[in-house]
Amino acid sequence: MTYFNYRGRAEVIRYMLVVGGVQYEDIRVDLEGKPTRDPVTVPQGCEKQLPFNQLPTLEIDGEIFCQTKSICRYLATLFDLHGETAKDRLYSEMVVECVDDLVNDVIIMRRTKNEEQRNELLEELINTTAPRAISSFDCFIKNKPHGGPYLLGNRVS
Amino acid sequence: MTYFNYRGRAEVIRYMLVVGGVQYEDIRVDLEGKPTRDPVTVPQGCEKQLPFNQLPTLEIDGEIFCQTKSICRYLATLFDLHGETAKDRLYSEMVVECVDDLVNDVIIMRRTKNEEQRNELLEELINTTAPRAISSFDCFIKNKPHGGPYLLGNRVS
Repeated sequence: MTYFNYRGRAEVIRYMLVVGGVQYEDIRVDLEGKPTRDPVTVPQGCEKQLPFNQLPTLEIDGEIFCQTKSICRYLATLFDLHGETAKDRLYSEMVVECVDDLVNDVIIMRRTKNEEQRNELLEELINTTAPRAISSFDCFIKNKPHGGPYLLGNRVS
Repeated sequence: MTYFNYRGRAEVIRYMLVVGGVQYEDIRVDLEGKPTRDPVTVPQGCEKQLPFNQLPTLEIDGEIFCQTKSICRYLATLFDLHGETAKDRLYSEMVVECVDDLVNDVIIMRRTKNEEQRNELLEELINTTAPRAISSFDCFIKNKPHGGPYLLGNRVS
């Protein structure tokens, strides 16, 4: 698993590899602290090493994959963390995407260079987006179809 | 399937339902043309009708789900459009996420209210983000692990 030397987008992949009990190589690279989707210079002929110019990547049997959430879903399949039915899988993925929407709003705000614009986005996050999302999560948890302490009942998904 | 009266994020769900040969109700709502993630006023007690305040939603056997990509993956499971192995699934999902990154950059640009800021984002898209993404897709297609005309060989995924 290759990523920059911080938690960032890769941390959930690291968690999942630990939960799955898999030995993996935690490769940390330093590209002057550039965030994931900034342009990365790929040496000629090395495009296969960095598909879509993105980190994190995960190498599986010599093949290199990117896109955090896709990698996580692959690991969830491998480690049987998707619940029992296709609908269970849909539930867990829906919640992940909703959390990711919120995370992305934070990332967009933090990357905005214009200070006034960034402050506006921060205010919108604090006053509107985050409270609305949290209240939706509250409501969803109250109505969730499975009992038990976890989203899909009695086990982690 | 419920969405606003335009193609937008829901169109790919509509396509998939057609590919899967499923009869479905194509409900179009008008919320003054607001884009998907704008706040939607949910009448008290109706939170179950609009989980996470988002459209599109898909009702399956009386349960309502949101998040376009999660819904699409569920339909891909139902209609056997994910290839044969977990790695095939990872390939197809990785490509979807990379396309979605580009789409999201366009959406962020279009939603930016400040004209100067919006023009900067547009320029970055045209001169940097889009060409880089297209060249990555070109490179990926050249090196793709399956032969045949489609991403996963001889059938649509």
